[in-house]
Amino acid sequence: MKDMDGIVEVMTALGRAARAAAAELAFATPEAKAAALAAAADAVRARRDEIEAANARDLAEGAAKGLGAAMMDRLMLDAARIEAMAGGLEAVAAQPDPVGEVIAEWQRPSGLKIRRVRTPIGVIGVIYESRPNVTADAGALCLKSGNAVILRGGSESVHSSRAIHACLVAGLRAAGLPETAIQIVPTRDRAAVTQMLRMVEHIDVVVPRGGKSLVGLVQREARVPVFAHLEGICHVYVDRAADPGKALAVVLNAKTRRPGICGAAECLLVHRDIAATLGQEIVDALMAAGVEVRAEGLRGSCPAAPEDFGREFLDMKIAAKVVDSIDDAIAHIRRYGSSHTEAILTEDDTAAARFFERLDSAILMRNASTQFADGGEFGMGAEIGIATGKLHARGPIGAEQLTSFKYLVTGDGTVRG
Amino acid sequence: MKDMDGIVEVMTALGRAARAAAAELAFATPEAKAAALAAAADAVRARRDEIEAANARDLAEGAAKGLGAAMMDRLMLDAARIEAMAGGLEAVAAQPDPVGEVIAEWQRPSGLKIRRVRTPIGVIGVIYESRPNVTADAGALCLKSGNAVILRGGSESVHSSRAIHACLVAGLRAAGLPETAIQIVPTRDRAAVTQMLRMVEHIDVVVPRGGKSLVGLVQREARVPVFAHLEGICHVYVDRAADPGKALAVVLNAKTRRPGICGAAECLLVHRDIAATLGQEIVDALMAAGVEVRAEGLRGSCPAAPEDFGREFLDMKIAAKVVDSIDDAIAHIRRYGSSHTEAILTEDDTAAARFFERLDSAILMRNASTQFADGGEFGMGAEIGIATGKLHARGPIGAEQLTSFKYLVTGDGTVRG
Repeated sequence: MKDMDGIVEVMTALGRAARAAAAELAFATPEAKAAALAAAADAVRARRDEIEAANARDLAEGAAKGLGAAMMDRLMLDAARIEAMAGGLEAVAAQPDPVGEVIAEWQRPSGLKIRRVRTPIGVIGVIYESRPNVTADAGALCLKSGNAVILRGGSESVHSSRAIHACLVAGLRAAGLPETAIQIVPTRDRAAVTQMLRMVEHIDVVVPRGGKSLVGLVQREARVPVFAHLEGICHVYVDRAADPGKALAVVLNAKTRRPGICGAAECLLVHRDIAATLGQEIVDALMAAGVEVRAEGLRGSCPAAPEDFGREFLDMKIAAKVVDSIDDAIAHIRRYGSSHTEAILTEDDTAAARFFERLDSAILMRNASTQFADGGEFGMGAEIGIATGKLHARGPIGAEQLTSFKYLVTGDGTVRG
Repeated sequence: MKDMDGIVEVMTALGRAARAAAAELAFATPEAKAAALAAAADAVRARRDEIEAANARDLAEGAAKGLGAAMMDRLMLDAARIEAMAGGLEAVAAQPDPVGEVIAEWQRPSGLKIRRVRTPIGVIGVIYESRPNVTADAGALCLKSGNAVILRGGSESVHSSRAIHACLVAGLRAAGLPETAIQIVPTRDRAAVTQMLRMVEHIDVVVPRGGKSLVGLVQREARVPVFAHLEGICHVYVDRAADPGKALAVVLNAKTRRPGICGAAECLLVHRDIAATLGQEIVDALMAAGVEVRAEGLRGSCPAAPEDFGREFLDMKIAAKVVDSIDDAIAHIRRYGSSHTEAILTEDDTAAARFFERLDSAILMRNASTQFADGGEFGMGAEIGIATGKLHARGPIGAEQLTSFKYLVTGDGTVRG
């Protein structure tokens, strides 16, 4: 399928089917949705051999293409990962259903009773790289929130994703829900992605999940609204009133626990008053842990270059800098941050309040590791991504963030004067 | 200023100034914002003569251009309208300040305390037709919600809008807030609108306020997110279990109270079982009130043409139709509605619940007039418009709907395992 007309036709058909499914899903019962997820988990376990065989095909094709080790690892599914996927489906099933929740309720002098009630958004498009498990996670969260979803996974994981998708469809069927509630794009042609980004009539929001080049492409080309973050350039500021023990533990964790995730710290800012003491101690500890510290005003692994600030290393590397005051730290973060997650380490309530008030990242932390920037850690059960935009969804995107609302107004023959 | 380069330069300067103001406004105290609004109200009263003189210039230019009577009336400011504008500023000042409100708060097993706190969005662009009072309303709501705003009013009202804008700036100055928090586009050139719709770096949301042609243009051309409704094709469904007295009163009010507003009823659907009795009675009452009823299955003023369904009359005209069941009514509304406001008239709780569940307009009403679709009637103090989109703002847009949020997370040296 190489011609664009063909792609448009295929995608429009998916879009129409998704809209129709969304109209039914909007009032599916919480029980039906949970039953579909539970049945999908059962199917994943029952079809483990099929999923592994499909994954073996992807791995063989990947090896033939010469994919790197990290990519091959992300692609690989073994018994443990398949079980984790089934468990994830069950965890989403067990979460509270957001649809129908009364968010607010009030009465007016006119006699009207007004309720603001949570509804699904409609149709979500999810575009992701070659992590086959995203098929299950994204499908589950969209279903939970009553949205139809069109999934477009990386072309390297196409066989695995299709096998997992078949399990989700089996779950929908078992629960009597429309099978087109969760669809997968049937072609590897990249033109399908371009088309998804333009389908404003059929897709309400696109969530890209992957590296900067994928997210950047989606943000540039989408005419559909996008929930995403381009980069996680997370800052940790060690205030002069930091507790040394907490500061050491938190900075080390923020950088080294998993340096490749978007919540990993990429820049350390240290107040001048404690730079030579606690600041240097932290830098030494980072280096001892194998981190390359590119430092300005501190003895690091090497001097920081200007481009090291505002840089997402996603690696055992960090930029470090001495600042004259908390306001300097705030100014630095405003200039170089990506509105994802920043932390202040301090025992001073006034300093913490200032940091919380004057910065506007999606997540601001005090005396806690930036690695907590995660839907699971926030108690959302699962996340489909993290957004740094200001509209609708911000921070971790769980089922609740995939909902909209409507107003239900009750009168008694009430007319406006 | 006719060249596009000049316009881009002017608009970019406005955009930069707005961003800088927004960064300060984000942590302005509720008291300072309320004081600015109160001082602006004082300035409006004190400068009534100046505002009237500016308005006289607009009216003279409008008359010379041959503007219609309705347009001239919208443009006109007299003592009562100027006082209403001042009162509106004070009413917004008296509303609760949404910024900083803790929307949700919870604790995690990790020990983290998470708060979700309301923040301003950033910079709002408001594009409106020649109603000079929108300058005051929109400026006030954006300031209240901590957002900087760039106002672009209709070119016919330019002198009046500038005079009102000067009062808002006087208020900002009196309260020590940045004067560029509320800016007005200094050129009548329409290219300024085009540029506003593209300024994704400097404007976070555009709110168009005006007729369908303005909103349609904005929705088609904007690369910036838009909060709007294109049309208010509001339906009223008279169920077979409707109370006759309530139904008569509500339908008449929904159509005739003010037929030109977006919440006016444009289509009456009547259940077959009561079509010949209550349904005909309502149609007769509408006609007696001077409404042209274009009817299918009822004796109206004339037969309905196919294009009368899904039509926004904004006039003393209504389409009317008999439906076989509530599900037929729902199907009709899904096909022809504009997701704005629909009402069901019924004493049957099951029917009302079905209507509320299966439709997804921004506002659904039971036994109440669609004319209540209004921020003031919802208790929001004032509104900048009504949105029918699914993302972020939906229904009446007041100060709260012009906010975003951030997560504030507190630990005690908490690290992720």
